[in-house]
Amino acid sequence: MIKKLLIANRGEIAVRIIRACREMNIETVAVFSEADREALHVQLADEAICIGPTSSKESYLNFTNIISAAMLTGSDAIHPGYGFLAENADFAELCRDCNITFVGPSPEAINKMGTKDVARETMREAGVPIVPGSQGIIKDVEEGISLAEEIGYPVIIKATAGGGGKGIRVARTEEELINGINITQQEALTAFGNAGVYLEKFIEDFRHVELQVLADNYGQVIHLGERDCSIQRRLQKLLEETPSPVLTEEIRERMGAAAVKAAEAVKYSGAGTVEFIYDYQNQQFYFMEMNTRIQVEHPVTEMVTGIDLIKEQILVASGKPLAVTQKDVEFNGWAIECRINAENPAKNFMPSAGKINMYLPPGGLGVRVDSAAYPGYTIPPYYDSMIAKVITYGATRNEAIARMKRALSEFVIEGVHTTIPFHLKLLNHEKFVEGNFNTKFLEMYDLMKSED
Amino acid sequence: MIKKLLIANRGEIAVRIIRACREMNIETVAVFSEADREALHVQLADEAICIGPTSSKESYLNFTNIISAAMLTGSDAIHPGYGFLAENADFAELCRDCNITFVGPSPEAINKMGTKDVARETMREAGVPIVPGSQGIIKDVEEGISLAEEIGYPVIIKATAGGGGKGIRVARTEEELINGINITQQEALTAFGNAGVYLEKFIEDFRHVELQVLADNYGQVIHLGERDCSIQRRLQKLLEETPSPVLTEEIRERMGAAAVKAAEAVKYSGAGTVEFIYDYQNQQFYFMEMNTRIQVEHPVTEMVTGIDLIKEQILVASGKPLAVTQKDVEFNGWAIECRINAENPAKNFMPSAGKINMYLPPGGLGVRVDSAAYPGYTIPPYYDSMIAKVITYGATRNEAIARMKRALSEFVIEGVHTTIPFHLKLLNHEKFVEGNFNTKFLEMYDLMKSED
Repeated sequence: MIKKLLIANRGEIAVRIIRACREMNIETVAVFSEADREALHVQLADEAICIGPTSSKESYLNFTNIISAAMLTGSDAIHPGYGFLAENADFAELCRDCNITFVGPSPEAINKMGTKDVARETMREAGVPIVPGSQGIIKDVEEGISLAEEIGYPVIIKATAGGGGKGIRVARTEEELINGINITQQEALTAFGNAGVYLEKFIEDFRHVELQVLADNYGQVIHLGERDCSIQRRLQKLLEETPSPVLTEEIRERMGAAAVKAAEAVKYSGAGTVEFIYDYQNQQFYFMEMNTRIQVEHPVTEMVTGIDLIKEQILVASGKPLAVTQKDVEFNGWAIECRINAENPAKNFMPSAGKINMYLPPGGLGVRVDSAAYPGYTIPPYYDSMIAKVITYGATRNEAIARMKRALSEFVIEGVHTTIPFHLKLLNHEKFVEGNFNTKFLEMYDLMKSED
Repeated sequence: MIKKLLIANRGEIAVRIIRACREMNIETVAVFSEADREALHVQLADEAICIGPTSSKESYLNFTNIISAAMLTGSDAIHPGYGFLAENADFAELCRDCNITFVGPSPEAINKMGTKDVARETMREAGVPIVPGSQGIIKDVEEGISLAEEIGYPVIIKATAGGGGKGIRVARTEEELINGINITQQEALTAFGNAGVYLEKFIEDFRHVELQVLADNYGQVIHLGERDCSIQRRLQKLLEETPSPVLTEEIRERMGAAAVKAAEAVKYSGAGTVEFIYDYQNQQFYFMEMNTRIQVEHPVTEMVTGIDLIKEQILVASGKPLAVTQKDVEFNGWAIECRINAENPAKNFMPSAGKINMYLPPGGLGVRVDSAAYPGYTIPPYYDSMIAKVITYGATRNEAIARMKRALSEFVIEGVHTTIPFHLKLLNHEKFVEGNFNTKFLEMYDLMKSED
């Protein structure tokens, strides 16, 4: 078993991992940039070590400093959380070379899924449905034009090294396609050091439905059901729920089986998420990408299955086989997560860093808060704006929604703007309550209009 | 349905009830004494009304002021919470006379269960096992002496109007019995206006196991499993859990059936608790008393069943039939509650009122906090010292315990002493971890010894 774990992250996910370790009697080491000296994860961990200045590049993304911190503190494992180094195959490989357990899949699996065109081909071979499009990256603009004519506009241009909403561009005409390919290639080269792009048919009317998978190092792979993450703003998820209001039992089973197949195809290990485009009008789904890490929205799955995903990650990384089989997994009730960001939704979601003067999270039955905020905490402007996740659980979707409205209405955060007013409008919106929406919901309805 | 509910209580239970109402779209009215102007329940309710000075007798126990407040605000129902007026049949009757729905059982049911000797006889007739002892209240000391000889010492003298650990005295000899009867009668007359006492065989080595029941006005009664509340200090519960570590499935079923019978015998309505003395050495159980109200420890039952007991109380009081039958009730996992009091456990649990300078409740997976505290809140010295309940849920008892230790260790309450250090010692105690204890655990082990 892992004895001492270094958490190469900050914010709520670092706190989340420390909590799991404390419950497992595993010692924890927090790392922090100079801007994070007063952060909650630093206070909660058994040990804490500074790994560099404010800039993420020089601290949370700094391989050398993080590996040194692990060695200095005698940590036998590193958990990367999400973001930063979580899907960096080179870092996972460096850990392996240094004899430090990386809590996550192998560098090979990360690489296969991180290189989007390789992932697409791997899925095609494994029999997982993929969106019609190019086979691998496109050679040049001409290949793109002829392919787009074949599959029909609109098409989507994707940087193979992209992800998280970056390196993506839609083209509805040949002109847009030519420009789009050129710009995306240039941007991808700058941002990811890899200019490769590929094409797919652009499905406009779909739900983002993703499957949580869990795999051990002995070939066992299970799924823990889906999460519906269709409520997005500029491709960033804002609210997630499980189950999905639009999935039939039959689709759920097929999607689950496809997700397991996807994980098996890359010899996956640990917790991962297979994201699907769900064309609910035609009840068809297509592989979008696999996130080879724990996700922000993992708590909703924990609420309905009772399974602690961080503990499972640590157990698998420690070499334990999965304790549950697919048929042991039970799903109870409904869970919703709202991401609370320090942003002003009435001013186009402008970031709102600063000091939290008063802070009181909601409590009571069916309410979970994952946060690294506290009264008097100053949110630094340098990192992610998410300051809390509120997760509610209910016997039904309506109960989970009512509980979320109750929880958000009693959440006290003074001193900074937050997205709570946005979420309250969303939760009261007729289409949301009906479960009748797709990923364009927030383009179609400007919830904050009256406050602009 | 109830449209507007007045909550005739304060503290965490008032907050708990407001939360349920908000989720049900029911308007809420808080009441407060002059000492509670800054209380959280006052801030959270839709309306708030002062019902008198600091003294409970003149405010939270003041029939006239509370009924007037209900009428003034147009409330169609009153929820009494626990304590104060919760088991006051006269108040329940006054509500009925004033055409205000009392969220609780009928005055007749309250009376039958509140008068301990009547309850005993009612249970005897209904076939619920009772502890050997007197039939009804004893006439005089002589009857007590001859009865004690018959059932054998030690015996316990109980005021028929007592409850919650008050009006109870043990006698191991005839001399103690004579004194005990006299003192208990005098005390009971002063405290409850009723000098009646009865005798029971005193069972020393037992667990306190209680069954949650739920009944509607149409004759349906179900139980929601047990709670083990054996960890007590001077008859006050400090930690409760469900399931009980010592109950077999067979005993659980028999106890559940007995609890349902007990509720049926008094035509019970709403949420109630049937408390049993569980002689675990001999696997025998005996009726102790029925609490005709919601209890402090109700959350552990909610965690393992997913049923919101306050909502059920409100639905039943609104005339709805129970939505679940006995066989619909599922039990998942394990839940523990620790009562956090503003007391100094190292100084014999001396109350520690005052200002909470810093306050940050624990969060994350499987942690629920029910509290009316907030940063800057001043705990008044006039009422109950309980300031928070921490409830943890886990797949197993060990996980629930580990999670509780983690949650308590990150709970920040500065400015007053709390019982958190006591609970941490308890949770680490070998006998507790084994589940091997009875109601005398805290007499046998002085957990705070080293800090005295």
